[in-house]
Amino acid sequence: MAQDKKLVEEITSMNEDFTQWYTDVIKKADLVDYSSVRGCMIIRPYGYAIWENIQKGLDSRFKETGHENVYMPMFIPEGLLQKEKDHVEGFAPEVAWVTHGGSEQLAERLCVRPTSETLFCDHYANVIHSWRDLPKLYNQWCSVVRWEKTTRPFLRTTEFLWQEGHTAHATAEQAQEETIRMLNVYAEFCENMLAIPVIKGQKTQKEKFAGAESTYTIEALMHNGLALQSGTSHNFGDGFAKAFDIQYTDKSNQLQYVHQTSWGMSTRIIGGIIMVHGDNSGLVLPPRIAPVQVIVIPVSQHKEGVLEKASEICDRLSDIVRVKMDDSDKSPGWKFSEYEMKGVPVRLEIGPKDIEKGQVVLVRRDNGEKIFISIDEIETKVPELLNSIHDNLLRKATALRDEKTYTTVDFADFEKIVSQTPGFIKAMWCGELACEEAIKEKTGATSRCMPFDEEAVSDKCICCGKEAKHLVYWGKAY
Amino acid sequence: MAQDKKLVEEITSMNEDFTQWYTDVIKKADLVDYSSVRGCMIIRPYGYAIWENIQKGLDSRFKETGHENVYMPMFIPEGLLQKEKDHVEGFAPEVAWVTHGGSEQLAERLCVRPTSETLFCDHYANVIHSWRDLPKLYNQWCSVVRWEKTTRPFLRTTEFLWQEGHTAHATAEQAQEETIRMLNVYAEFCENMLAIPVIKGQKTQKEKFAGAESTYTIEALMHNGLALQSGTSHNFGDGFAKAFDIQYTDKSNQLQYVHQTSWGMSTRIIGGIIMVHGDNSGLVLPPRIAPVQVIVIPVSQHKEGVLEKASEICDRLSDIVRVKMDDSDKSPGWKFSEYEMKGVPVRLEIGPKDIEKGQVVLVRRDNGEKIFISIDEIETKVPELLNSIHDNLLRKATALRDEKTYTTVDFADFEKIVSQTPGFIKAMWCGELACEEAIKEKTGATSRCMPFDEEAVSDKCICCGKEAKHLVYWGKAY
Repeated sequence: MAQDKKLVEEITSMNEDFTQWYTDVIKKADLVDYSSVRGCMIIRPYGYAIWENIQKGLDSRFKETGHENVYMPMFIPEGLLQKEKDHVEGFAPEVAWVTHGGSEQLAERLCVRPTSETLFCDHYANVIHSWRDLPKLYNQWCSVVRWEKTTRPFLRTTEFLWQEGHTAHATAEQAQEETIRMLNVYAEFCENMLAIPVIKGQKTQKEKFAGAESTYTIEALMHNGLALQSGTSHNFGDGFAKAFDIQYTDKSNQLQYVHQTSWGMSTRIIGGIIMVHGDNSGLVLPPRIAPVQVIVIPVSQHKEGVLEKASEICDRLSDIVRVKMDDSDKSPGWKFSEYEMKGVPVRLEIGPKDIEKGQVVLVRRDNGEKIFISIDEIETKVPELLNSIHDNLLRKATALRDEKTYTTVDFADFEKIVSQTPGFIKAMWCGELACEEAIKEKTGATSRCMPFDEEAVSDKCICCGKEAKHLVYWGKAY
Repeated sequence: MAQDKKLVEEITSMNEDFTQWYTDVIKKADLVDYSSVRGCMIIRPYGYAIWENIQKGLDSRFKETGHENVYMPMFIPEGLLQKEKDHVEGFAPEVAWVTHGGSEQLAERLCVRPTSETLFCDHYANVIHSWRDLPKLYNQWCSVVRWEKTTRPFLRTTEFLWQEGHTAHATAEQAQEETIRMLNVYAEFCENMLAIPVIKGQKTQKEKFAGAESTYTIEALMHNGLALQSGTSHNFGDGFAKAFDIQYTDKSNQLQYVHQTSWGMSTRIIGGIIMVHGDNSGLVLPPRIAPVQVIVIPVSQHKEGVLEKASEICDRLSDIVRVKMDDSDKSPGWKFSEYEMKGVPVRLEIGPKDIEKGQVVLVRRDNGEKIFISIDEIETKVPELLNSIHDNLLRKATALRDEKTYTTVDFADFEKIVSQTPGFIKAMWCGELACEEAIKEKTGATSRCMPFDEEAVSDKCICCGKEAKHLVYWGKAY
């Protein structure tokens, strides 16, 4: 029991030091290891298995909406990166440059892709000729590199894994539909798979993607009241098409530029999962992406029949849920702490007394509740329990988000909220860059998004007092 | 019909110019596109879908044998690459170097990983402490970069996609078992999923991996008699462990070095699939990895009831096989050529007369055979047909391989075979590097492998006539 205690003690309390708590959790739950490469992390098997489940969930949604996967080179020649003016200005300062291949110096530098718009555009110019070639609905799973000054595992690393969708359409309307469709796919995925509620909305001009006409975002709120941009979807209009000369012949034989979109979600969302659901005992994984949904722990496993029964239960569950048994020689107490730390949604205990009574004990990670069920019912009750854990996590996260969402019409109040009880702040904005910058400078809060379908809370800008144009969610963010 | 003819005419005959045939097929079947990046290819949706199916097949085999996926950084600091002497000598001349991050020059250059032994070793030194931590059975899916002078899509490109397994074991015996286990996984995968028969064996010292104690390989024979190294598995002994100080405490509390392996298979195998099974009408895909296994083509689709029936059949098959319907306004003739070119294993035709008779027409891509079956039987007959196509492809490929496998004890004969009827040549070797180099220089053939469990064909080296130590498969290779 001394060992169990130590294990738990080693995590800093989240109320005491949230940043340290985060670092403790990712290390203790074996999600990542630091590497010898500046700003790059090693994703360990348990962390990567979460990513694989996220990939499966997103990839099937992309395919259901008609998208196909492709693979583009990881390098972008400097000249190609420069073709779209806003885009290169946004990304050139933070890319890694390859200057030598083997011992030969390259005639033209190559950057390691920070994102692949330019490569997709170059390819689209090659393969799009007629209206019959449209739409092109492509996606790519890969890693990208952005030279970051300060890094934190999952949240901001020099290299990270992501998917990037890139589509080309015949009309502006179709591109806009796609942009919103994929934003909705992200939002639905976050709620239904990750139990993370998100605010959907549009980014301001200041915060939009380099080269986009408009950027849409889903924003989640972390336990400490900071916002996390969790996925973005961009409408490019025909800006890239003009820069890369991507034209098609329409049905009346006229040359037209295509309209494009791109959208992405990354390993950053794993940081979101940790900070939305985690607690002072460690990780709390939403059941639908947990690598292990049920951990079976035999109690008094040396006693006759215990291991056999535990194995039998494990086998029976293995077609229905992701289940694992820990029959190592460590103490049950050690195991309890270990799988709590790792956020396994359900612990299933079975010992001699349980076998006598024909029952197992289920312990929920989300609220610690103990449930006794008949062994005969495991195939129905365990999946039900996982669903109910999902629902509870989503309910709790939504309640916390709502509790930390403030509405104000007073700037002093705004400042006080940011500094004392951070969260989302709903406040009106005149639409001027000057006010957006002033708010950031004075409070540290940035505009997170202009939400869809929400009512104005006043008719005056929170900053300058002039006529308000938009309701904005503001907040400090990762 | 003029269009159909043109489509077929555009492919060079494989007997006339095999290299041009290969290039024609990969372009016409929409597998790849050339990119603006020297030596890098774009893998298009149809090509990438083949890779996804290969990934699924391999990944499930890796997981069944206890392996876990991880992700390591794509960069290797120069100092880390240099830790194992043979390894750096093998790879340093062909890596891409990153020298700048944003506008800042790096204090230490980073190479883009050509392979990740050094990163895995660095991590293993961190996470392996006790015998309880062993074995570590890790795999990674990623892309790697090797600065190649001459490139050809799939076969040799500057960047390519692959998986790399990296394992650490307590004993030399366990590492050797793992090395052979994974070689066998590759061979079984090639035969059962790709219908490609392979020769398993050990590489000579000259041909082994940089840093390995021994390298094992599976070698396939292409239609033109050239060999393709299709997967390799390396036993590192404790060489890397000593260079990276990866030690563990054994059960009797002694410090021991781990023993390691690595093994990889890449998108190169797609080149193998093309060159083993393809024919003068284009690609021929083995059914188990074909993105579309059955293409449904409605005939006289404007006639009443045809499209409805075709859709119904498509729906019925969609739970059982990967099926697609082409009801575009192109002519059936155009569609027939198109899906022949793309190597779809089965074409299912249905027209008004078929509906009257309650039948569909199945046309096999592998041999052109037409089969009439009752609509009632599609759920059983179509999967059976796919299996029988697989068996036939494997049988044909094995027959061709055997036909092009020669045995000789005479050097003049050896030279004649290589230059006139290339294939695998089984001939004895004394084990001396000088003879291996002389054979390569004089004939262009390299040692492909020393096969397992095959009988000696003479007791003299084919080159020097001295005592032979090994039977070797020789051949020209990609």
